[in-house]
Amino acid sequence: MRIAVVRETRPGETRVALVPDLVPKLTALGHEVGVEPGAGEAAGFADELYAEAGAGLVDQPLPGAEVVVSVNPLDRDRLHQLREGTITVSFLPVSTSLDLVADLRDLRVTALAMELVPRISRAQSMDALSSQALVSGYRCAIVAAGLLRRFFPLNMTAAGTVQPAQVVVLGAGVAGLQAIATSKRLGAVVQAYDVRAAAAEEIRSVGAKAIDLQLETLEGTGGYAREMDEDRAARQKDALAPYIAGADALITTAAVPGRRAPLLVTAAMVEAMKPGSVVVDLASESGGNVEGSVPGKVLRIGHAQVWGGDNVPSQMPGPASSLYAQNVVNLLALMSHEGDVVPDFDDEVVVGACVTHAGEVRHAPTREAIEGP
Amino acid sequence: MRIAVVRETRPGETRVALVPDLVPKLTALGHEVGVEPGAGEAAGFADELYAEAGAGLVDQPLPGAEVVVSVNPLDRDRLHQLREGTITVSFLPVSTSLDLVADLRDLRVTALAMELVPRISRAQSMDALSSQALVSGYRCAIVAAGLLRRFFPLNMTAAGTVQPAQVVVLGAGVAGLQAIATSKRLGAVVQAYDVRAAAAEEIRSVGAKAIDLQLETLEGTGGYAREMDEDRAARQKDALAPYIAGADALITTAAVPGRRAPLLVTAAMVEAMKPGSVVVDLASESGGNVEGSVPGKVLRIGHAQVWGGDNVPSQMPGPASSLYAQNVVNLLALMSHEGDVVPDFDDEVVVGACVTHAGEVRHAPTREAIEGP
Repeated sequence: MRIAVVRETRPGETRVALVPDLVPKLTALGHEVGVEPGAGEAAGFADELYAEAGAGLVDQPLPGAEVVVSVNPLDRDRLHQLREGTITVSFLPVSTSLDLVADLRDLRVTALAMELVPRISRAQSMDALSSQALVSGYRCAIVAAGLLRRFFPLNMTAAGTVQPAQVVVLGAGVAGLQAIATSKRLGAVVQAYDVRAAAAEEIRSVGAKAIDLQLETLEGTGGYAREMDEDRAARQKDALAPYIAGADALITTAAVPGRRAPLLVTAAMVEAMKPGSVVVDLASESGGNVEGSVPGKVLRIGHAQVWGGDNVPSQMPGPASSLYAQNVVNLLALMSHEGDVVPDFDDEVVVGACVTHAGEVRHAPTREAIEGP
Repeated sequence: MRIAVVRETRPGETRVALVPDLVPKLTALGHEVGVEPGAGEAAGFADELYAEAGAGLVDQPLPGAEVVVSVNPLDRDRLHQLREGTITVSFLPVSTSLDLVADLRDLRVTALAMELVPRISRAQSMDALSSQALVSGYRCAIVAAGLLRRFFPLNMTAAGTVQPAQVVVLGAGVAGLQAIATSKRLGAVVQAYDVRAAAAEEIRSVGAKAIDLQLETLEGTGGYAREMDEDRAARQKDALAPYIAGADALITTAAVPGRRAPLLVTAAMVEAMKPGSVVVDLASESGGNVEGSVPGKVLRIGHAQVWGGDNVPSQMPGPASSLYAQNVVNLLALMSHEGDVVPDFDDEVVVGACVTHAGEVRHAPTREAIEGP
């Protein structure tokens, strides 16, 4: 089938949905790959590399495409270039994209959302939320080390000893664990907290101390946390306050999929931090774990510099694209059959990821949000 | 004796020559410490902290001082506030400060230069070049990791493997070894080169591969490198070129004390680097190891971003000041005797560090440069 790789149009987006190295995987499955010129440029992949790998360069890749892969969903203009029955594979944040989903339904597009791929072992290699979180988590630790005007590691010198930095990480999903591991690698003393019971062991497994607030844990579905009520949130803030006040660097990575990120740290808690301390809020984009953080900016709150994340995987577009492309190719491979891409609606991976198909919204909560109960 | 701690006046300087923690060490030796208000502010040390540690805050600390400590040499205006016989302790780059040295001589000031403290075991704790290089070296690796849009470490994920970054470090003194160690900690693959024979073992001891160019080594005095002739420099560039071309990040730290830094990497060599590669030139300020690097700027040369260092220890003023202050206090302790500071001109540390005393230039090469042979 003809697979189109488009140039992303979202401002600030530098990733691309397919990298040259993976073109042969798709052609080996019997597909043709058409790349829009410049698609990989911002990620460091020149057009020639795609061509050398066996892809075609196609100025208008959408009208002839049977499958379209992208990082962000196609914008409305481009959507209307698709033929009925086209399969789109991209991130597709359904709860904030209801109009777009209705369009996809009406155009009879089969839209697969990478963030809806179920978190089961068989689909690990298609888990793009995890692959991008890995990039973000590493980047957060590097940003914190760069902003902090002191050493992460302990230094013992002839002139005396320099104490290591105290790093606190909130949220210990893929991003948080990567931030912990990277901070530990650099020699910082790391403590971390997550509302999930299983997190404590994972935190310890990457070398940090798990903060125990003596609060009840909150397990959601698919290994994610669930939301908490106001009372627990207030008690959690009180219990966290001394850890935040003692930190040289605070990295927050707590997110609940499809929802506003929980506010874990108030401005008052940041104001209690030491002179020279830094805060890196990866969740800034989805509302922020830290009150007052702004996506894409470094602000001063009290004595701290507060950095707000804004499409953080785009800060490392090469590896972020390679990992995302691998996820996408694995999903396409799952659906490929004798040169065709044929979604199998008996497969829970396909069912889970499918948002629209054959004129219907297949994702139940989204259907309810658009069409009513 | 009355020891004055001045507020630095050099643009961009954020360090301070004494930190609050070390005030008690001086008062225990029988000295009085007078700190100019705001002296520690840029390094994160508030006036109150000095006062709490037992120092006085003195608006005009120079006229009453018997010892003056600073990071940079006093400017000419402030020098003329000193009384005859005052002892100054600071960095004092003699070869580029001949007028200043002549003034110090004429004012009959005893000027001690921290960079001239001999590199002997007994004076290790006073080695401010090393302590500041430690800060710079760490910072260079953090800057490189921040500029590079990919991972330093290897990452093996469900979706595939991301290769580690290739880092090349030129110059393996204190700064270079610290840059290597920090890059290794972050998981990069590191290769390093230094003209000194002893360096290969040191490079290996911090976990990097020592690049062997099959060239003769160049040992100078005090563990530093010596300058090379044009022919060897050309052969070295040729031999290094493939290593540079293969690097994701290049960190250069080669300096010959008191001289222009050697040009190790030409613009053509940088232009041969891969898209997305980064160059961090710590020696930018003293002429640059990399052709075209500019202190304090990030420029694009070919496909690479080239960062030029500009007073790099000032980017981490807290730890840089703590270490420098420890060096200064150790030197003062060596010269302290029953509440006085009495330089012992039979001590090779004092003799080595002394630039002017009793109306004479005591540092032979500087005397020759000022007064002729």
